[in-house]
Amino acid sequence: MYRGKAREFLKGISVGDRVRITKEGRSYEGFLMPRSELGDEKHVVIKLDNGYNIGINIENATIEKIPYERARAKIEERKVSFSKEKPTVTILGTGGTIASKIDYKTGAVHPSFSTEELVNAIPELEDIANIRTNLLFNILSENMTPTHWKEIAKAIAKELNSGVSGIVVAHGTDTLAYTSAALSFMLKNLYKPVVLVGAQRSSDRPSSDASMNLVSSVRVACSDIGEVVVVMHGSTSDDYCLIHRGVKVRKMHSSRRDAFRSINAKPIGEIRENKIKVFQKYRKRKEEEVFVDDKLEEKVALIKIYPGIDKEYFDYVVDNYKGIVIEGTGLGHVPTNLLPSIERAYEEGIPVVMTTQTIYGRVNMNVYSTGRELLARGVIPGEDMLPEVAYVKLMHVLAHFSDLEEIRREMLRNIAGEITERTEVNNFLI
Amino acid sequence: MYRGKAREFLKGISVGDRVRITKEGRSYEGFLMPRSELGDEKHVVIKLDNGYNIGINIENATIEKIPYERARAKIEERKVSFSKEKPTVTILGTGGTIASKIDYKTGAVHPSFSTEELVNAIPELEDIANIRTNLLFNILSENMTPTHWKEIAKAIAKELNSGVSGIVVAHGTDTLAYTSAALSFMLKNLYKPVVLVGAQRSSDRPSSDASMNLVSSVRVACSDIGEVVVVMHGSTSDDYCLIHRGVKVRKMHSSRRDAFRSINAKPIGEIRENKIKVFQKYRKRKEEEVFVDDKLEEKVALIKIYPGIDKEYFDYVVDNYKGIVIEGTGLGHVPTNLLPSIERAYEEGIPVVMTTQTIYGRVNMNVYSTGRELLARGVIPGEDMLPEVAYVKLMHVLAHFSDLEEIRREMLRNIAGEITERTEVNNFLI
Repeated sequence: MYRGKAREFLKGISVGDRVRITKEGRSYEGFLMPRSELGDEKHVVIKLDNGYNIGINIENATIEKIPYERARAKIEERKVSFSKEKPTVTILGTGGTIASKIDYKTGAVHPSFSTEELVNAIPELEDIANIRTNLLFNILSENMTPTHWKEIAKAIAKELNSGVSGIVVAHGTDTLAYTSAALSFMLKNLYKPVVLVGAQRSSDRPSSDASMNLVSSVRVACSDIGEVVVVMHGSTSDDYCLIHRGVKVRKMHSSRRDAFRSINAKPIGEIRENKIKVFQKYRKRKEEEVFVDDKLEEKVALIKIYPGIDKEYFDYVVDNYKGIVIEGTGLGHVPTNLLPSIERAYEEGIPVVMTTQTIYGRVNMNVYSTGRELLARGVIPGEDMLPEVAYVKLMHVLAHFSDLEEIRREMLRNIAGEITERTEVNNFLI
Repeated sequence: MYRGKAREFLKGISVGDRVRITKEGRSYEGFLMPRSELGDEKHVVIKLDNGYNIGINIENATIEKIPYERARAKIEERKVSFSKEKPTVTILGTGGTIASKIDYKTGAVHPSFSTEELVNAIPELEDIANIRTNLLFNILSENMTPTHWKEIAKAIAKELNSGVSGIVVAHGTDTLAYTSAALSFMLKNLYKPVVLVGAQRSSDRPSSDASMNLVSSVRVACSDIGEVVVVMHGSTSDDYCLIHRGVKVRKMHSSRRDAFRSINAKPIGEIRENKIKVFQKYRKRKEEEVFVDDKLEEKVALIKIYPGIDKEYFDYVVDNYKGIVIEGTGLGHVPTNLLPSIERAYEEGIPVVMTTQTIYGRVNMNVYSTGRELLARGVIPGEDMLPEVAYVKLMHVLAHFSDLEEIRREMLRNIAGEITERTEVNNFLI
C-alpha cells in the first residue's frame, strides 16, 4: 500500500518485517505496518514494541531490516532527559482510550498503558518540553465520579505550584467535558494551562488520534493560555486540533475524531503545524499560586424533559435531591403537569435550574407563558449554559450556599466563562 | 428604513399609515410596517388586520393611503375558492408559535390564531392548492402528550383517506420532532406526504419564518414524497427550507430559524424558490389507504446518564416503568454502579435501550468492556437512533410485544427509516 517515495524508501522490505529507522540521531525499531489508502508518500508507519504505531517522515531517514530475534534483545527504554531551556509539563494519567490498547483476544479496547509508556511511544513530546508523568488512576471515563474530579484537581494544583509550566490530563472522552467543567469551577486563581486531552481511536489503530492530540496538548500546556481547556482533533483529517474552553465544550459524536465541539462560543483557538492561532479572548498566564476549592454537593440530579413525563417521577426527584437541573424543551419549557412539583421544590428550598435539550442556544423564559410561569415558581434560567455544565456548577454552588437567592445569584454569575454574552450566542450553531 | 425603489413606491406614505396595495387583481389592506436594515428594495411589509405581517413585492403593484376609519369598515374575509385543477391540502392546527401572536401588554407570545386565519393571512397558499383547515387543538407543544399524538394521527388518516393530496400539521417547535417520530410509527401503509411545520418567530415579528415555512410545507404536501417529514428553514436567511425525515430530525437550537437539523442522515431534500430538490431516497406517493396503529405503552422513561448518577435513582425507574431508554455516554456506556439495576431490569422483563447523549453517531457496545458488560445484561443497542426517537419507538413496540427477544428484534428493525446504514452514519456531523 506504500506509494511513490515511501515505496522507494522501503525497497526490499515488506509489511510485517522488523525494521530500524534512524533519523536525526534517533532510531526507532518495530514492525512495518500497512498504510491506509489515504496515506501520503512521505511517511512510513511502524508498530513499536510497546504496541503504539508511529509515523516517521522518511526525509533524511535511513532504514534497515533486522532479524526479529536479534531485535528483541536490543530494546531498551530511552533515557528521559532534562533541559533547563525547556518548559516542564506534567501529564496526569486517568485512563481512557488515549492510554489503552486493543485486546487481541476479544478485539475490544482496554485501558492498560501507563502515561510513561505513552510518552516513550511519542519521542517528539520531549522536543517540546521536559515531561513528568503521574498515573493518578486508570479508569474508563464513564466511571469518573466527583471524587475523581477532586483527586485530579488536587494533583493539578500540587504540580502547578511546584513550578511546572502547565498540565495535561489524559482522560477518557465519554465524560471528559464534565471533568473539564468541574476543574474549571474547582481550580481557583488559575493562571496556567490545564489541558484535558483524550483519543477517539486507540493508539494501535492506524487512524489513532492519540499521538497528535497529545503532542498538541503539550504545546498548549506550554502556551500563555491560563485556563482549563480541552484539546482534540478539529477535523477528520490529522491537520489541526481545536482548543476549547473547558466549560463550553461537548462531545458531539460517538466515534468521530473531531467529536468535540465548542457550543455557543468560538473555540479559544487552534493548533496547526505546531502553531497556536487564537480566535478569542482568554485569561493570560501569570505567576500565581492556584488553590483548590473542591466542595461539591453530590445530591444534584440532571433530568431530561420529554412528552408524557410523569409528575410522580419528577416528585421522586424533588423528594430525593438537593438541586435539580432540567434539560427542558426549546427556550426552557416543561409540560404544565410538572408545575406543582416545581413550585414545591422552590418552597422546600431546592433550586431548579433550566437548560435546554436543543444543546445550542440560550434559554429565554420571558417569551412564552410556560416560561413565565416557571420563573414565577423560582426556576433559575440557565442562560446558555450546557446542561452538563449547569449540573456541575450547581453541585459547586450548592456546596457553598443554601439560600435560594444566593444560589440564583451564583448560578447567573459568570464564574469560569460558562455564560456567553447574549449578543454573541446565536452565531455558533455548527 | 425603506430604500431605493421601495422608497419611491412609498412616496407620500409613512410607516404606520393605513394603506391598500393592489397587485394582480388582489388587494391587501393594513398598516405600513418598518423594514429591517437587511431588507431589500423590492418588498414592502404591511400588518394585516388579523395581526400578521406580509411582505409584498412592489413590482406591478399600486398603493394608496386610506383613512383608518374608512378602512376599518371595509375589511371582509376573502372568499375561499376551490379549483379542480389544483391538489387539495389539509392544514391541521395544533397550536404553537406558527399560530400565535405577541400579547402587546406583556410582550410575550400566546397561541391565539386559528389555522384558518393563518391561511387568510398568506393568500399565496391558495395559488398552490385548495386549502382545507381544521384546528384540532391549540396548545404550546411542551404540553403535547401521547394522547394528542393519537388524535393527530386519526385526523391525518381521515383526511388522507377522504382523498386530499397531503397533510400539513402546524405544530409548536419544542416537541415537534417527538410528534413527527410518533406519527412515523403510528401511520401504517402511508404513501402520501404528512408535513410537520412550525415557526421559531411569531408571525407579527418582521423576522418571522411562519409564512415561508407554511408555504413550503404546502408545496411539499403536494409533492410525491409519501412519508412523514418536517419542513423548516434551512438557513438563517429566507432562502430555502429543508425537508427532514420525521425520525431523523431534532431541534438543535433554542431560537434560530434554522434550528431543525437532520441527524445521522442527509435531509430528504430542500425547497428553494418553490422548487423541490431531492438529496436521497424516499418513499414515493401511491394511492393507498393509510391506517392508524395508535397503541402506545406510556410507562416508558428516558434517562440521561451523568457522572455521579445514583443507583437508587435508576432503581426507582426500574421499579416504576415498563421500558427504559438510556441516553448513555460515548458509544453507549453507563457507570459500573448501575450494572446491577440494569441486570435486574432484564430479569424483570423490562427492556433497556441504549442511545447516546453525543446526539450524533452510532452506539457501538462491542468496543469497550463497559459496552460488552451491558450487552451481556440484555441491553438493546439503539444503533444510531436519536434518544427521543428510541423513546417513542419503545412506547410503540412495547404496546405490541411483551417478550424481550421480540422487543429487541423490533427495536433493531428499521420501521420508518429511523436507523441509518452503518456505512453512512459517520458523514453527517453538521
